Amino acid sequence: MNAPIGIFDSGVGGLTVAKEIMRQLPGESLVYFGDTARVPYGTKSKATVCKYSRQIARFLQTRKVKAIVIACNTASALAREELEEMVDVPIVDVVRPGAKMAAETTRNKKIGVLGTRSTIKSGIYERYLHQIDAEITVVSKACPLFVPLVEEGLFEDRITEDVVGRYLHDMKEYEIDSLVLGCTHYPLLRGVIGRETGDGVRLVNPAYETAKSLKEMLKEKELLAPAGGEVTHDFFVSDGADEFISFANSVLPRRVENTSLVDIEAY
Amino acid sequence: MNAPIGIFDSGVGGLTVAKEIMRQLPGESLVYFGDTARVPYGTKSKATVCKYSRQIARFLQTRKVKAIVIACNTASALAREELEEMVDVPIVDVVRPGAKMAAETTRNKKIGVLGTRSTIKSGIYERYLHQIDAEITVVSKACPLFVPLVEEGLFEDRITEDVVGRYLHDMKEYEIDSLVLGCTHYPLLRGVIGRETGDGVRLVNPAYETAKSLKEMLKEKELLAPAGGEVTHDFFVSDGADEFISFANSVLPRRVENTSLVDIEAY
Repeated sequence: MNAPIGIFDSGVGGLTVAKEIMRQLPGESLVYFGDTARVPYGTKSKATVCKYSRQIARFLQTRKVKAIVIACNTASALAREELEEMVDVPIVDVVRPGAKMAAETTRNKKIGVLGTRSTIKSGIYERYLHQIDAEITVVSKACPLFVPLVEEGLFEDRITEDVVGRYLHDMKEYEIDSLVLGCTHYPLLRGVIGRETGDGVRLVNPAYETAKSLKEMLKEKELLAPAGGEVTHDFFVSDGADEFISFANSVLPRRVENTSLVDIEAY
Repeated sequence: MNAPIGIFDSGVGGLTVAKEIMRQLPGESLVYFGDTARVPYGTKSKATVCKYSRQIARFLQTRKVKAIVIACNTASALAREELEEMVDVPIVDVVRPGAKMAAETTRNKKIGVLGTRSTIKSGIYERYLHQIDAEITVVSKACPLFVPLVEEGLFEDRITEDVVGRYLHDMKEYEIDSLVLGCTHYPLLRGVIGRETGDGVRLVNPAYETAKSLKEMLKEKELLAPAGGEVTHDFFVSDGADEFISFANSVLPRRVENTSLVDIEAY
């Protein structure tokens, strides 16, 4: 089917998911929406995240998308069910694929999950992981300073090392062997996180598995784009289009030429 | 005049200003609005901060306020002029009083300003300080990690000390003698900031001076509440009313009993 895939995130973090989708599904057109005016979602209530997600889904529907990818862990945790009731296209989120991958990765059935306050508070990773295997022990930790550190560009820094050490301190005694990076910003800190956890812990980045799930779903539902069609990548944000473009060009393999502002509250 | 004073902030930080107003103007009723759904403002564009501020001003006008206090440095920096054109009640912001106080405090005419990215980028403190005295040297620095550190409760912590040291490092060679804490969250880090700058630097918290300016303005315009009238303090937020109440009760001298949710996008 020759319609684009809609992807949304609270801001720029979802571009790591978009990148993986471009890699695994190079023939698909994408419409990306980043809610840069109302970022972050990780501290907001379920009611507010649902409202914002509904507005974005309405916007994406005006672009005739054939599927929606929720490329934000918080929105995946809080708004997936509401969106499923509202839209008639299939939805892929980042939490289920991330949980699935972690469950396949672990050997000792002890899994750590890092996320925003709202994602951790929702208990969604525990729920999915326990649906897969009730014997898995899940240790989760909210890491509210990670997103600001990433946005300050402190990927490799003593301050980041201190913060990572602090957040992971209590997790150590549980001897986890897999750690889910449950926020799209966190893979950018994987160097520091990996040094802190050591070689025995496998870091799980849901972006790869999300793109894989999307591909399987499109195939199953016969929604894949026909070969040889035109491929377009359109970007929309609710604020700061210029900053978005420069970040997008540092993350994505193809050059982002322009990004349009959307008055998302009007949807 | 027996109408309330409207106060708004991007979230909870403005409560430090509300507290000072309650102290200096105990006979005045207040309507506080915290835009907790769309916090923070410090990373947003002028267009977006103006739009949000206009919505809030429209909401405050439905509460028949006799004056509006912009208790957020970023909104003061970016939206004051727009609001003045829009509303017919007097407006007090936090930046002008803060700049005035810093200009009165300095002896060597070297003033530092700490603020959010958007406040610093606006150049508003430089502009006001140079209007007062063109010979003042202003050294300003955006400190995007301060708000997240405050919201994590790390008021006294080695991580906070490291971050403060990093942000203030370049400022040291300028030998400032006054430092404006140009964001309502920053006074909560004054312990660490003060140790880093040392005794020779006076920290300027605009909240005190803002309440003083408000009092003078109400007096001059004969808008002070008549003695003996009923005093009410009403609180409104756009998200997370329960979290707001618990924070408000840790900051304010009077107990906040309830806080109402407002659908601010509808204004």
